[in-house]
Amino acid sequence: MLRTILLALRRLLRYLVARMDTAAAAPQVSFETHPSRYRHWTLAVDGEIARLTMKVQPFGGQDAEVEPAGAGPAGDGPEPQAKAYQLKSNSYDLSVDIELADAVQRLRFTHPSVKAVVVTSGHDRIFCAGANIYMLASATHPFKVNFCKYTNETRLTIEEASAESGIRFLAACNGATAGGGYELALACDEIVLVDDGSSTVSLPEVPLLGVLPGTGGLTRVVDKRKVRRDLADAFSTLAEGVKGKRAVEWGLVDAVVPRSKFADTIVQRAKALAAAVPRVARGPGIELDPLEPRVSKDRIEYRHVTLALDHGARVATLTVRAPEGEVPTKAAEAFSQGPGGWGIRAARELDDALLRLRFHHEGIGLLLLRTQGDRRKAHAVGELLAGPSAGRAGSAGDGLQPKAEAPEAWILRETRLLWQRVLRRLDVMARSLFAVVDEESCFAGPLFELLVAADRSYLLDADGVEVWPGALSDGALPGWSGLSRLETRFLADRGRAKAVIAAGREGPIDARRAQQLGLATVLADDIDFEEELRVAVEERASLSPDALTGMEASYRFPGPETLATKIFGRLSAWQNWIFIRPNATGETGALSLYGKPERPRFDWRRT
Amino acid sequence: MLRTILLALRRLLRYLVARMDTAAAAPQVSFETHPSRYRHWTLAVDGEIARLTMKVQPFGGQDAEVEPAGAGPAGDGPEPQAKAYQLKSNSYDLSVDIELADAVQRLRFTHPSVKAVVVTSGHDRIFCAGANIYMLASATHPFKVNFCKYTNETRLTIEEASAESGIRFLAACNGATAGGGYELALACDEIVLVDDGSSTVSLPEVPLLGVLPGTGGLTRVVDKRKVRRDLADAFSTLAEGVKGKRAVEWGLVDAVVPRSKFADTIVQRAKALAAAVPRVARGPGIELDPLEPRVSKDRIEYRHVTLALDHGARVATLTVRAPEGEVPTKAAEAFSQGPGGWGIRAARELDDALLRLRFHHEGIGLLLLRTQGDRRKAHAVGELLAGPSAGRAGSAGDGLQPKAEAPEAWILRETRLLWQRVLRRLDVMARSLFAVVDEESCFAGPLFELLVAADRSYLLDADGVEVWPGALSDGALPGWSGLSRLETRFLADRGRAKAVIAAGREGPIDARRAQQLGLATVLADDIDFEEELRVAVEERASLSPDALTGMEASYRFPGPETLATKIFGRLSAWQNWIFIRPNATGETGALSLYGKPERPRFDWRRT
Repeated sequence: MLRTILLALRRLLRYLVARMDTAAAAPQVSFETHPSRYRHWTLAVDGEIARLTMKVQPFGGQDAEVEPAGAGPAGDGPEPQAKAYQLKSNSYDLSVDIELADAVQRLRFTHPSVKAVVVTSGHDRIFCAGANIYMLASATHPFKVNFCKYTNETRLTIEEASAESGIRFLAACNGATAGGGYELALACDEIVLVDDGSSTVSLPEVPLLGVLPGTGGLTRVVDKRKVRRDLADAFSTLAEGVKGKRAVEWGLVDAVVPRSKFADTIVQRAKALAAAVPRVARGPGIELDPLEPRVSKDRIEYRHVTLALDHGARVATLTVRAPEGEVPTKAAEAFSQGPGGWGIRAARELDDALLRLRFHHEGIGLLLLRTQGDRRKAHAVGELLAGPSAGRAGSAGDGLQPKAEAPEAWILRETRLLWQRVLRRLDVMARSLFAVVDEESCFAGPLFELLVAADRSYLLDADGVEVWPGALSDGALPGWSGLSRLETRFLADRGRAKAVIAAGREGPIDARRAQQLGLATVLADDIDFEEELRVAVEERASLSPDALTGMEASYRFPGPETLATKIFGRLSAWQNWIFIRPNATGETGALSLYGKPERPRFDWRRT
Repeated sequence: MLRTILLALRRLLRYLVARMDTAAAAPQVSFETHPSRYRHWTLAVDGEIARLTMKVQPFGGQDAEVEPAGAGPAGDGPEPQAKAYQLKSNSYDLSVDIELADAVQRLRFTHPSVKAVVVTSGHDRIFCAGANIYMLASATHPFKVNFCKYTNETRLTIEEASAESGIRFLAACNGATAGGGYELALACDEIVLVDDGSSTVSLPEVPLLGVLPGTGGLTRVVDKRKVRRDLADAFSTLAEGVKGKRAVEWGLVDAVVPRSKFADTIVQRAKALAAAVPRVARGPGIELDPLEPRVSKDRIEYRHVTLALDHGARVATLTVRAPEGEVPTKAAEAFSQGPGGWGIRAARELDDALLRLRFHHEGIGLLLLRTQGDRRKAHAVGELLAGPSAGRAGSAGDGLQPKAEAPEAWILRETRLLWQRVLRRLDVMARSLFAVVDEESCFAGPLFELLVAADRSYLLDADGVEVWPGALSDGALPGWSGLSRLETRFLADRGRAKAVIAAGREGPIDARRAQQLGLATVLADDIDFEEELRVAVEERASLSPDALTGMEASYRFPGPETLATKIFGRLSAWQNWIFIRPNATGETGALSLYGKPERPRFDWRRT
């Protein structure tokens, strides 16, 4: 009891401090948190089974973790968190999803023994009501889009953990499961709904709000769960949702269970999921430490990453530095370096920088990707992460335990997957990406992927300019489409991707050879390089930001399609369109009028 | 000379009549035309080679073929054709594309001997400048979207003719090839560009207009031609385009040829294309006759199709009637029926009705699909079209001549492909589709596909209510994704699609059995049927038209992705979004200000 009061006081204090800070300047949400500071979720680990319980603090939206004021230029960042909305009915906003993303990340690094996670609610009659409507309705268009993208990435992270880290997720829907709440359940491997005569699963966005279930819902209903499309149609226009036997018959959930047997069933099913999980390397965990970047108006500085912002030119430069000091050569050494090891730390810093760029600096249209440092060391990290004993499950889910592996081998798998996620986050940045390669550069190991993730690459034609693709780039870090970035680049002739890998096996590749291999959009010598780059940057920053977003979204994902590319390419595009239409967000649009007595008025023309 | 003057006079007269008509009410563009009436294209057939030459009449946009006034309710149809714009530089509007679509259709039916088509320009220094910008800028959002969709369908028709009708297309780019002009070239099998030091291919939409190349351009650059994505990026932001050797190196064109050798080279390459075309059934052609529907305010009446419009309820009912009289049992009989045969005529009528609904009646949100007539006859037509000697190339492009075929066998192939195209047009209608099945219904043969194309199906549970899937539905009429509509419906278990086909082999399937087989969204008896349908219709018609469009676009295309699904799902969604953004169509947007001295002003926030 005393502990409860103390906790409440601590929260109140944090809330007041946060409010004071925000008085000075726009607050900027932080993407870092820790289970000890969660306000909306609890993460409880019991051997192989973890339980992730959502009990959203109604005022969480106003009580978000914010950084000291003055960190960003006024007007360059959204401040949706300062709006007055309540997170009723376990509805969520960005702060809730940041905790969820953190929990999944920590499960992988801190609790690698966990094989099944029960995702449930701490409320009696409600699992989750989805994204908070008042938050959405009051947010700017860019924030809406960024919010949906982030929540989508979090859901896909859950599915990646299931597919590649040997962690199965069970949605224990102990009450109403609506909108984004059902989309969260859809991201899990199994969905069990309580059968109490009233609890339903539903996607009420279309009938109630005039928008789409934008967190992958539509795609997962027909593409992941393969619900018959006419039933999916009926389901998604039925505001009250579907319950009981029909929910099972339609394939919307895997089982319904009476409330009296719900808890036991969940325990049993979680155990069954854990027992059937493919065997992957597991071992003792590590605690992820805070990143503590130094944030100023035009610079975010981490240990290995710097994001420099030129607000006037609308250009940012992201520089990632290679490892210094000893580079681990096996799993045990990587493990002993803990969270401070470059592989983990640099990736987390890069991830944080990308998120801050997205949410805090919407006006930056072009990101220059630069690298610095010792190519041999970055290359060595890459080879270790891609190596034969890097804790991978081999061909996906073949159920074989990797042989003769150190107990710490899991850390190599998770570090690789961390890079995979960060690079995929980069792939869906709605910013132009130019890689810049000069004498200082270190496009080697995982950093080589920055070169091929970029929309264009500018290579200086000079001695000492080298890039170094390694084993990681040979399929170990696929993009959202499932192809490696090299395969995506050379879709016309995948042999050229192999040629790049083969060249990298011989050692670093100089600039001219890189151009011959197809790695340079532009190769220019000393005399022209800076000028060529300057003109390209200015030109890029002058073009319509919307047209560039649409163009880049089309060009970054040629070739095969996956659930993820469908979500980011198709569903998100439709959602963006609908969000900007007067029928949703105009004065008489459905989203704007939600919760008000007026009925929305539509422009009925169908397009 | 006299003929030229007479033709000019005739055109002037038609122009004046059209203008007079438009004074009375909104004109409604007609989707029918004939080579003898083309104003922008000429179609010349010489044995196995045809030449399709574009020479757009600058005032074609104002001189479009329109129907007598009073055909539609005021305000329910767009009238982009009445705007004052000139189609300079071989730029096109809807009237130009209607002629192109007609030409491709007539090549298949009237000239089945043709194996290669040269697509070129009648202007000296310009191939095609793409869609007319002033037309686009002045058009409503629904018209923009419908225009892009129609032009996309036309391009995909060209690719279908290449893949399935044994007609190869050669883009002879004898001058500047910009925007939609290059997109037209991309739809061809080969692109040859004149090498004259100035002629380029270009996609200037992003840099000049702040919109996307919306006719499949981005998708085809990286997915069809597989241009390296960084080069695609550079190309698509370079307003002046790419010419000469670089255009070949980047994969944007297949060859560049000096002007002096251009004509000869084109002839040679066209012959080579014709020589290498897979062997398919060919024979004497037929002339497609005019449809001559009776059009009134709330009804469009064809021989086999009726479209009844309830503008107040925003609901239309499309009824397709089964064949009457003799049904052909082999190719020669189908051929002897000519264009009046039900298989061709009903499909063309359905196609025309869908286009009129799209363009003339934007306010209709829901389309009820009904059928009437003799199920045995419709079934028999379907079996003939799907039959073993139905002029198909077997497994796509295997180069084998079908054995022992009548010379008229081509007509079965082309009739089947016509249904394929019409049904695919239905699949991308931005309208909700409910199939209604009662005692009168005839969901059999090709009409069975209407049932499975629908978003929902309502079946009356009564004696005599039957549906009849046949061989056509077993993969002979795939949707845009390449799957049959039954496979799409039963993505979770394709065996269920096979079960439906197997049941149809036994004969018509009654309503209850149809429900057991998964063909009914709702099965209701006499007492409830009308009421259930009425409520569903009213509810559907009350929902946000935008949200429904996005939802249906997601649910209609689960499973595999193709160039077409990428274009309609991804590219079109982005294009729709960009079209509605102030950065394109706001007062200071790039599209609005095109051709004016002011520079566009952008909201720089990247989303």
